[in-house]
Amino acid sequence: MIAPNMATMLCFITTDAAIAAEHLRPLLRDCVEHTFNRICIDNDTSTNDMCLCMANGRAGNAPLVPGSDDFVRFGKALREVCLAMAHALVRDGEGAKKFVTIHVEGAKNDGDAVKAARAIAQSQLCKTAFAGEDPNWGRITCAAGYSGAAVEPDKLALWLGDVLVLDRGLPTDYREADAAAHMQEADIRIRLRMGDGPGVCTFWTSDLTHDYVTINADYRT
Amino acid sequence: MIAPNMATMLCFITTDAAIAAEHLRPLLRDCVEHTFNRICIDNDTSTNDMCLCMANGRAGNAPLVPGSDDFVRFGKALREVCLAMAHALVRDGEGAKKFVTIHVEGAKNDGDAVKAARAIAQSQLCKTAFAGEDPNWGRITCAAGYSGAAVEPDKLALWLGDVLVLDRGLPTDYREADAAAHMQEADIRIRLRMGDGPGVCTFWTSDLTHDYVTINADYRT
Repeated sequence: MIAPNMATMLCFITTDAAIAAEHLRPLLRDCVEHTFNRICIDNDTSTNDMCLCMANGRAGNAPLVPGSDDFVRFGKALREVCLAMAHALVRDGEGAKKFVTIHVEGAKNDGDAVKAARAIAQSQLCKTAFAGEDPNWGRITCAAGYSGAAVEPDKLALWLGDVLVLDRGLPTDYREADAAAHMQEADIRIRLRMGDGPGVCTFWTSDLTHDYVTINADYRT
Repeated sequence: MIAPNMATMLCFITTDAAIAAEHLRPLLRDCVEHTFNRICIDNDTSTNDMCLCMANGRAGNAPLVPGSDDFVRFGKALREVCLAMAHALVRDGEGAKKFVTIHVEGAKNDGDAVKAARAIAQSQLCKTAFAGEDPNWGRITCAAGYSGAAVEPDKLALWLGDVLVLDRGLPTDYREADAAAHMQEADIRIRLRMGDGPGVCTFWTSDLTHDYVTINADYRT
């Protein structure tokens, strides 16, 4: 740390399983990519964010090797652990009152889906709208639009919770009260279809509240 | 616009000068790159930000051509106009109480300088610290660190106003009260030296205040 006010994420995972470092390393990297690297509170990456996994082999199992059923099960469990901790980080975000799940589908490829989802998750305009509980689909689609990901405007669809608010790029005849009711929940679900490509991504974020500003601006008064 | 709450910048510049589109276009692009594209309120690029310059030639001058003194003077004037408007946008930013100038120098190249300056300008942690008037050099150097730009840690220097707070990567024996006094001014100057390369960039941003959240979260209540 280079300043005590900086957000820092240090994650240590231990397991009794026997698994060689050469197999554990790519597994952990993949888990981190889809969990810790898919959350965002305020875009401020700490210079010392870190996730370690240590396996001591005391479980006495035959070392886990790729291709085996046990390896697949271990991988799933590791991902579950990472995801649970990543979600806890979001719920514990500075001043956060909302837990927002952003699912992007139909993108040109996974990379484009990540770009769009991350742009929404980082957008201060989206995050203040979440805080204000406003079903502001314009801000969400705008963030996807400027993300750099390919968008097929006439195939765009957006759900807030279960309410389809945009279809084929145009507002549906949804009742705004229904969309607003979903935004008032503590857990908000956003689903954006960008086209008919195979790219998908799920990303998690918080809202941007007055308490965020208080915590990060007025910490010395 | 795809939603009336979205920030949108439309800029129209007119001139009586005679200048061919083929010469005006690259000139304007260069001006925009160093003015409008060097400011940031909240990272939310509007999908329809736009800057147009129209020249009708009514001044009756011989058409301006690259290489001539008049062309250079016209280019300087155009840049001045763009810069004045870009600065006005920052001062008018939602809830902004601070006008922050970020000057990065000594970067590997200009591209790296832009990356570092933009990261600081976009950082919610830096912008809340500006709002809180705290001389938090950790947040500023952290943003430069995660920007992707090359940093030479042992050559890092940082000034807040005229106060040198970091030199050769280490805190100086500055008096914190002096740095804090500068942060209390409405216009904040940040100067970051990243190494001894030729790359420079000047970028402008605002602070992130409670009023920003109020304006962008509570606009319907």
